[in-house]
Amino acid sequence: MADTQHGLDAPSPEPRIGIYDEEGYLAEDFLDRVKDAVDTDDQAYLRQTIAPLHESELGDVLRNLDHDQRQSLVRLMGEEFDYTALTEVDEAIRLSIVDAMPNEQVAEALRELDSDDAVYILEDLGEEDRKEILAKLPFRERLRLRRSLEYPEESAGRRMQTEFVAVPPYWTVGQTIDYMREEEDLPDSFAQIFVVDPTFKLLGAVDLDRILRAKRPEKIDEIMHETRHAIPAETDQEEAAQTIEQYDLLSAAVVDENDRLVGILTIDDVIDIVQQEAEEDIRRMAGLGDEEISDTVVTAARSRFLWLLVNLATAILASLVIGLFDASIQQMVALAVLMPIVASMGGNAGTQTMTVTVRALASRDLDIYNAGRIVRREVLIGLLNGAMFAVVIGVVAAVWFANVALGQVIAVAMIVNMLAAALAGILIPLVLDHFGADPAIASGTFVTTVTDVVGFFAFLGLASWWFSI
Amino acid sequence: MADTQHGLDAPSPEPRIGIYDEEGYLAEDFLDRVKDAVDTDDQAYLRQTIAPLHESELGDVLRNLDHDQRQSLVRLMGEEFDYTALTEVDEAIRLSIVDAMPNEQVAEALRELDSDDAVYILEDLGEEDRKEILAKLPFRERLRLRRSLEYPEESAGRRMQTEFVAVPPYWTVGQTIDYMREEEDLPDSFAQIFVVDPTFKLLGAVDLDRILRAKRPEKIDEIMHETRHAIPAETDQEEAAQTIEQYDLLSAAVVDENDRLVGILTIDDVIDIVQQEAEEDIRRMAGLGDEEISDTVVTAARSRFLWLLVNLATAILASLVIGLFDASIQQMVALAVLMPIVASMGGNAGTQTMTVTVRALASRDLDIYNAGRIVRREVLIGLLNGAMFAVVIGVVAAVWFANVALGQVIAVAMIVNMLAAALAGILIPLVLDHFGADPAIASGTFVTTVTDVVGFFAFLGLASWWFSI
Repeated sequence: MADTQHGLDAPSPEPRIGIYDEEGYLAEDFLDRVKDAVDTDDQAYLRQTIAPLHESELGDVLRNLDHDQRQSLVRLMGEEFDYTALTEVDEAIRLSIVDAMPNEQVAEALRELDSDDAVYILEDLGEEDRKEILAKLPFRERLRLRRSLEYPEESAGRRMQTEFVAVPPYWTVGQTIDYMREEEDLPDSFAQIFVVDPTFKLLGAVDLDRILRAKRPEKIDEIMHETRHAIPAETDQEEAAQTIEQYDLLSAAVVDENDRLVGILTIDDVIDIVQQEAEEDIRRMAGLGDEEISDTVVTAARSRFLWLLVNLATAILASLVIGLFDASIQQMVALAVLMPIVASMGGNAGTQTMTVTVRALASRDLDIYNAGRIVRREVLIGLLNGAMFAVVIGVVAAVWFANVALGQVIAVAMIVNMLAAALAGILIPLVLDHFGADPAIASGTFVTTVTDVVGFFAFLGLASWWFSI
Repeated sequence: MADTQHGLDAPSPEPRIGIYDEEGYLAEDFLDRVKDAVDTDDQAYLRQTIAPLHESELGDVLRNLDHDQRQSLVRLMGEEFDYTALTEVDEAIRLSIVDAMPNEQVAEALRELDSDDAVYILEDLGEEDRKEILAKLPFRERLRLRRSLEYPEESAGRRMQTEFVAVPPYWTVGQTIDYMREEEDLPDSFAQIFVVDPTFKLLGAVDLDRILRAKRPEKIDEIMHETRHAIPAETDQEEAAQTIEQYDLLSAAVVDENDRLVGILTIDDVIDIVQQEAEEDIRRMAGLGDEEISDTVVTAARSRFLWLLVNLATAILASLVIGLFDASIQQMVALAVLMPIVASMGGNAGTQTMTVTVRALASRDLDIYNAGRIVRREVLIGLLNGAMFAVVIGVVAAVWFANVALGQVIAVAMIVNMLAAALAGILIPLVLDHFGADPAIASGTFVTTVTDVVGFFAFLGLASWWFSI
């Protein structure tokens, strides 16, 4: 999101020990002093303490204040409040601050921000507020922000920064350096300059270290490299991040449909995206939707409800399977005691395989073509572990209920369910992925449904057949 | 790991359409041609096709070859093989290539690599091989690599690159630029230069764009910024990555115990670390240990066995609880049919809460001090969803078994278990974290143990009390 640290506006150099404790959390006494100052309207203290903070530090402070304290802090800081910090907190906190501000003041704040940060704040707002705020901005800025906002959510165009340095190919290194020395209107920081033709069509890029190593008379087009990895603005942010990451680029050019340079994605955006996407996968696998920790109880409960409802349906399906064998259970109650073990082991083994599969799909280590090898691998693992746990649980059950046949039945059921777990754990995400569904979000339910149903059916079915009950 | 893309050795510029398909996987026909060439010893084709590949592309190729093909490819490529690609594949593949090479040749290969990449390869090797390879390297390189290897695994010192540009504070911008123009022995690419005193004590850093904007006579110490976020070499890589990420640094200085500059961590290392750590968390939550997709069946089965064994123990514990009520089940077999529903809903709700908690701990949004608020929040969510699902499952059970009292019993049990799930989901990771255990690795088992035991006990216990059976 933010610009990289640099000398121009580096915070005051005195050591600011005491903001974080040893664990990396905000120090309690620091936080208490800030809260006191907010509660007592101690503007002088706040401006002196908060103004030098890095945006991420201010973000941590905001996260730890309550709703009213946040608004007071923003009001007391006035022009000294660094709105970039709003890109460091989650949506609920961001909106609680921005919604309380008059649109006039929001527009004023956005003018100080890089375009990507401004878009980040604008995109969460309601249609009406957004229009009103944009109308209050100068023409060029309005145009830039509107263009970013027209690209789809989570696209490269939405995430890009529209401030960059671009020069023509026929300039010399000397001309370029002189331009950078004299031009006032440069981005806060940059690691690359781009080379464009008069229509802004992208020709190439030069890393700054390359310029510093070149002699003044050398031409830019002699030292530039072709930008083979320019990113179309409509590209999904995850795909864009993968490109930048794969080729270890410091920043990547974002181009429109006519190959014209419209913005850049910097590597710190990529880190944010990589983290965001990994978080999303983790949350989806646990059935959490897009919940954030600052969401209200009702919002969070609602977002978890759907997943639990799906789980209820599959649990009832498993119960129906058990119901088929109620006569057997009544005659041999040990079956009811043991049956959750078979289901639970299958569920866990299936989740292991599923996690391997989902992550291999995400990192593109796996596709429908090399699936055969992986299926064989997982089936073998399932057989191996199935066999081992069959022996363990077989012995346990035989001893526990003094019934060797029962031990044999549960052993066979265990092997069957571990195999089912392996197959379900790999095939379900693969098929979902093949049909364009996100394997992270939906696999879990299907996999445990399979292992529950197969587990109960194999164990109870085998038992009722074996014991003829 | 690797250096950023730059002009000096940019691959040939012809468009290389056909390496990847539209989905981002290696294109099948490209891969087939490479495999053919490997199998028929077509050295000319390989050198022409493989040599211009980016290290990450070569890594993808290696991943898709089998063991023998990989070794043939390395042999056929000879000096044209880019060993940096070994940092792009996982350990099993890396070792399968390096172990097959004579140590002499490994030493030769390492000399061409940046120090961080060389360390990456060396650290996986056996003690003996490592010593022999190091002995074959020139004195200065040996010294550097040994120093990195002496730092703990996954520390900043182990991951750092020892090639960097450092200048004295009294140099002018002009002197610095002239130095960079003339010096041959600069790193392949860099985004920052560091300022040190004669003992190499770190004084500050200057981003390259700052140098390009400054006039030639300006002194370096006038434009440098203090490096407030220098990273002690012993720091854990995850913590180091968090610092770089929090302050959006392009690269961070790594210092020894006397504050002397010993290396740098670049932002592309940070991306690798961020991804690696997110992967680790996902794998740990699923009980996968450090398994990689290229591990053999036996290795993978073994690494999953332990987790499944723990799960077996907790499943047996849950069965013991069921066993307490075998008389009740025999009298009312509907209990056996319904009991997995209560346990399963609790398990899922607990996993949701646990995932929120584990991630909030990882991102430091949560600590033991603000836990009160989060516990309240989760308990409320548990109550809300518990109440809703109590109604649903109560009605379902009452209708299914034509028994209103049974519906009431399961409804109460559901609320009890959802509350238990909320408490277990938040308190177990918090306590584990408080005592220094990794909450990601151990929480899952404990949480589902609690929800299984409480679920079975609440439902069966309530039923046997209610129906006096």
